[in-house]
Amino acid sequence: MYVSETKIRVRYSETDKMGYVYYGNYAQYYEIGRAELMRQLGFPYRKLEDQGVFLPIISLNIKYIKPALYDDMLTIKTYLKEKPEAKIKFDYEIYNDQGELINKGDTTLVFVDCKTKKPCKAPEEFLSLFNKS
Amino acid sequence: MYVSETKIRVRYSETDKMGYVYYGNYAQYYEIGRAELMRQLGFPYRKLEDQGVFLPIISLNIKYIKPALYDDMLTIKTYLKEKPEAKIKFDYEIYNDQGELINKGDTTLVFVDCKTKKPCKAPEEFLSLFNKS
Amino acid sequence: MYVSETKIRVRYSETDKMGYVYYGNYAQYYEIGRAELMRQLGFPYRKLEDQGVFLPIISLNIKYIKPALYDDMLTIKTYLKEKPEAKIKFDYEIYNDQGELINKGDTTLVFVDCKTKKPCKAPEEFLSLFNKS
Amino acid sequence: MYVSETKIRVRYSETDKMGYVYYGNYAQYYEIGRAELMRQLGFPYRKLEDQGVFLPIISLNIKYIKPALYDDMLTIKTYLKEKPEAKIKFDYEIYNDQGELINKGDTTLVFVDCKTKKPCKAPEEFLSLFNKS
Repeated sequence: MYVSETKIRVRYSETDKMGYVYYGNYAQYYEIGRAELMRQLGFPYRKLEDQGVFLPIISLNIKYIKPALYDDMLTIKTYLKEKPEAKIKFDYEIYNDQGELINKGDTTLVFVDCKTKKPCKAPEEFLSLFNKS
Repeated sequence: MYVSETKIRVRYSETDKMGYVYYGNYAQYYEIGRAELMRQLGFPYRKLEDQGVFLPIISLNIKYIKPALYDDMLTIKTYLKEKPEAKIKFDYEIYNDQGELINKGDTTLVFVDCKTKKPCKAPEEFLSLFNKS
Repeated sequence: MYVSETKIRVRYSETDKMGYVYYGNYAQYYEIGRAELMRQLGFPYRKLEDQGVFLPIISLNIKYIKPALYDDMLTIKTYLKEKPEAKIKFDYEIYNDQGELINKGDTTLVFVDCKTKKPCKAPEEFLSLFNKS
Repeated sequence: MYVSETKIRVRYSETDKMGYVYYGNYAQYYEIGRAELMRQLGFPYRKLEDQGVFLPIISLNIKYIKPALYDDMLTIKTYLKEKPEAKIKFDYEIYNDQGELINKGDTTLVFVDCKTKKPCKAPEEFLSLFNKS
């Protein structure tokens, strides 16, 4: 299993009139989490796209436990629990300044060829990262 | 069961470099869908907040079937299948110009008192809408 | 001079904890305004991109006069005052439900070739729309 | 004059189908810049709101020089050139990884009393920061 931790500070633009982070913005936080996990694995998401492979989402699930507030420093924990095949699944937990779990969820993404827009295999170089371990 | 249909046109700002609607933006589409359903029920969400009740989200689930593209005219179908109690659940389906189902999901929200920030009962006037039917 | 009017309803996601529309979201409203003006001219922005021409922004100026609130039905008036050449400039005014001018601004965009990423001439077909009038 | 430097990494959600950062998102970058400048001054924006004062925007001007791309690490330089009175003006410059100036602009904000929604004086404690220097 791979885990990464990323810190982000809540932006004013991310709050809504309820005073909380708008519920759709957690998708962005998850995106930041998985991008950092891939960077730490040594294969930034940008490199994947440079090699002609996109990773669109097919499934998103979120549980909202406590609100996040403006200027909070959040910690995103991202987990890659299974070796990716045609799909890749990430799990997420978000913690606030006080170390409380405020949000958790998961996303499933598929490897897609930029040109054909069809599902494809992940690049060998990417998959080989998981054979090593 | 209550159903509403809303049309929205995809904004340029809602796309990402993949050329598709960014996956987090469907949360906004769902929000528009349920706001229109509540308006059609005769109880706009704004009125709920005016009465001191918020509706934060506790759960969001989305399946992405096909991408939505810039300038597409989408149809959001929103369903309220069960009478709300402490919680209220909406189901959503999004169709593209060709009538294809491209996205579906659901959200669960809880009634919260603006002042105490604690769960509360929905206003009587709102609940009575469902007794009538 | 060309003018178009578009109506948009303020989304919850567009508000911030101040309870107003977040100041950056007016850029989206302007985008919707000019997209509708181009559609009414008979040359939707999507068609421009289909022909290999992008319209990135080089300048944005906004004056915020009064706040816009959740669920407000806004009217965006978009003006094209000068025949486009290498650049195209749009002016905007936004009015609230009460007919008050709450925001005004302008954007200047340049025609760019999708492939070379260099400035280019607008498509003849687009320019010819302005010769006719 | 006060200056602060903040680094931000471009999020996927911030790009649009052109492959560039969407032009409206620079407003968010500016917000981050001025929030960090205020934090460094010893008076975080959150504290201002806690004291019952909002800072809505009255004017935004942006010049777009070069595009910002996904995953770019940008540097936001924020300048406070004049002592704030009823208004406070910030100037911004954004640089890419290569140290190129890609964007510049300014925002003017006014101090507003949360309750009356009327312009007000900045808190003494905030203004006194500028007397010291």
